Amino acid sequence: MTMQINAVRLKRNIIALSEIGGQPNGGVTRLAYSIQEKQAREWVAARFQECGLPVRLDAAGNLFAHLRGRFPLPLVMTGSHVDTVPNGGHFDGAAGTLAALEVGNTLREAGFKPVNSIEFAVFAAEESPRFKAGNRFGSRALVGQVGPADAELLTDENGITLAQAMCALELDPALLPTAQQRHGAIKAFLELHIEQGTELQALGIPVGVVTRVAGTRRYQIEVWGRADHSGGTPMHARQDALAAASQIILEIERAANEIGGSLVETVTTLSVEPNAMNIVPGKVVLGVDMRDIHCDALDRATLALFESVDSVAQQRGVAATITVLRETAPIKLAPHLCDAMREAGARAGIPTALVPSHTGHDAISMSAITDSGMIFVRNPGGKSHSPAECVEWDDLALATQLLLETIVSLTEKVHA
Amino acid sequence: MTMQINAVRLKRNIIALSEIGGQPNGGVTRLAYSIQEKQAREWVAARFQECGLPVRLDAAGNLFAHLRGRFPLPLVMTGSHVDTVPNGGHFDGAAGTLAALEVGNTLREAGFKPVNSIEFAVFAAEESPRFKAGNRFGSRALVGQVGPADAELLTDENGITLAQAMCALELDPALLPTAQQRHGAIKAFLELHIEQGTELQALGIPVGVVTRVAGTRRYQIEVWGRADHSGGTPMHARQDALAAASQIILEIERAANEIGGSLVETVTTLSVEPNAMNIVPGKVVLGVDMRDIHCDALDRATLALFESVDSVAQQRGVAATITVLRETAPIKLAPHLCDAMREAGARAGIPTALVPSHTGHDAISMSAITDSGMIFVRNPGGKSHSPAECVEWDDLALATQLLLETIVSLTEKVHA
Repeated sequence: MTMQINAVRLKRNIIALSEIGGQPNGGVTRLAYSIQEKQAREWVAARFQECGLPVRLDAAGNLFAHLRGRFPLPLVMTGSHVDTVPNGGHFDGAAGTLAALEVGNTLREAGFKPVNSIEFAVFAAEESPRFKAGNRFGSRALVGQVGPADAELLTDENGITLAQAMCALELDPALLPTAQQRHGAIKAFLELHIEQGTELQALGIPVGVVTRVAGTRRYQIEVWGRADHSGGTPMHARQDALAAASQIILEIERAANEIGGSLVETVTTLSVEPNAMNIVPGKVVLGVDMRDIHCDALDRATLALFESVDSVAQQRGVAATITVLRETAPIKLAPHLCDAMREAGARAGIPTALVPSHTGHDAISMSAITDSGMIFVRNPGGKSHSPAECVEWDDLALATQLLLETIVSLTEKVHA
Repeated sequence: MTMQINAVRLKRNIIALSEIGGQPNGGVTRLAYSIQEKQAREWVAARFQECGLPVRLDAAGNLFAHLRGRFPLPLVMTGSHVDTVPNGGHFDGAAGTLAALEVGNTLREAGFKPVNSIEFAVFAAEESPRFKAGNRFGSRALVGQVGPADAELLTDENGITLAQAMCALELDPALLPTAQQRHGAIKAFLELHIEQGTELQALGIPVGVVTRVAGTRRYQIEVWGRADHSGGTPMHARQDALAAASQIILEIERAANEIGGSLVETVTTLSVEPNAMNIVPGKVVLGVDMRDIHCDALDRATLALFESVDSVAQQRGVAATITVLRETAPIKLAPHLCDAMREAGARAGIPTALVPSHTGHDAISMSAITDSGMIFVRNPGGKSHSPAECVEWDDLALATQLLLETIVSLTEKVHA
């Protein structure tokens, strides 16, 4: 291997893209299916065209730049997304998208002729703040998990449906089924992403090879007590929904620590009714976010959660209900891709460590129809979805070089 | 004693007054210094004038109807307020105001000539929802505890100052000092009020003689943790502000139960930041409401509160601050007035019980310049500040009869 990515160009592109939807405080806002997302996609498309790679847009708004190989199919694909959370950072999505652009640029400059064709993807609408359960909409349309009916059902906080938002960008939601790609068309998918945690920082390693992606379970717990006057109601005569909720919160924390391992479980949201200074809380609603790469740990935590809600409700004479908001299974990424990345790193002298991912990515969608792999870039502060998100430019260059090396190795090998 | 209040007229007046500011759901909204409060005051004034009692309005908007006795001063006063919380009930304030009107009517019909003059008061702006710390503004102006500067400082949620609200009702806040009455001008003050609790109901007694009024302490606790990603942050690396707050809530409840007696202590309000499904809570703000008739119990509970906030903060590596929002001392009502009410009850065959009050009333303001007493009417459901507030009409009649008997006894005796 003598090809080297151009770290200066990569940095310049990251900075240039961050100006689309840039906020006064340094953050970036390019919501799913917004005009800013479209502008960012078109800016990336123009860069791919400049280096001689033709682009096409599918019905979901996913963009693909194509580097023709000896065989048209199956192809090797890499990419990420350019939409962001409100006031997000410069790297989530953008790093993987522009690393793919940098790989394309480097391969073109070297006149590289791959065995398998290579496609560079910019997926639409990966983030959840605008359309909530519509997250990863572009990549899920590609694997056939969402279609026109979903686009009609999902709405943003202004009541605009995802379908209407697509139409405003001249995308026809009725054509979504045409975005679906068949099993076998893609040999492998790789995504580079900023780590949304500090495991690489703790290990002192710049680049991570992701082995598993955590499953997420989200629950809403409603606790119903009785809203009495806080002056006139003796302590023994109360059904205080907030005291009961507090006990549940501590039980959840205790169970998560007891189960241990990589399980994380958090009560992230809470609201009180009537939330008045002189009224005993009558109702509390809790949101629970639970994640792990091991399904059995999630099962144990779920069981403990249900048991502690029941037992606190009984003990305190309050009523409680639990609603499942989301359940995604943990995913093991393709071991042969992990091996390919580790070997490429070893060959190129790029230190890598095996790490889990605690959050979902387009690579998760892609794993439904192909082998998926992910490369993480060390995140010194662990911040993400925030203007404070940052990476060392040298770490990003190493990760992008690893992406290049791995893609080249994949287009040269035939894998069963 | 042969004078008897007219229970039918009293009931009719309660129902008639509830139509001023009446809400579709049966509740009543007559906020402090609103046009509805003024309309209610004018309606009551007209009723006093109909029975031949002249009325005057002071600079704070307090209304007084006057029954002339053999001596002009000191006078015996009774009354309450006609303002309400938003969507309040038919009895809080109105019961004491219209019981006073009924006593006036009965005395006039009987041609009663008191030794001491009697005044029937309708205090302005007793409730706190509109002007918060401006509660009991009318009665506190009468005892010289608030003046023009307070009226300028207090604002409602629309930014209207209490002074502006007074001006809109043709009351001049600059004249507030003229509302002040001197120590010694009032021999005794009595207030009838619906109980805001269920102690009389539990005792099976229709009428309560209030011995003490609980002191209230209110605190705001801010807990500062760190808002990390709930997926990427291991359990051991968190500073979860909500878990810390939950521990504080349970410590407060435990301490209140341990101190026991009549102490009540409640975390009534809570807000979480950022309150997002995938972020560990970074900041929590709690509101604590603590009440007791015993100062030492309040002191012990306050000490325990500060200690547990400190200890939880230290244990969990979070920061916490406590702000004092309100501190009112417990008040012992005049024992000779309690005796007078108990004796009057015994003479008239009206069962009474000694009870505490857990909430503040105009009688508390009045106790700054005179002996104060309170009569409670049994509240079957304990609900108050709500359309569900209710009393048995027979209980209200008994309590009003007791008010009449006591006032007559006070105007006939000379008390040191």
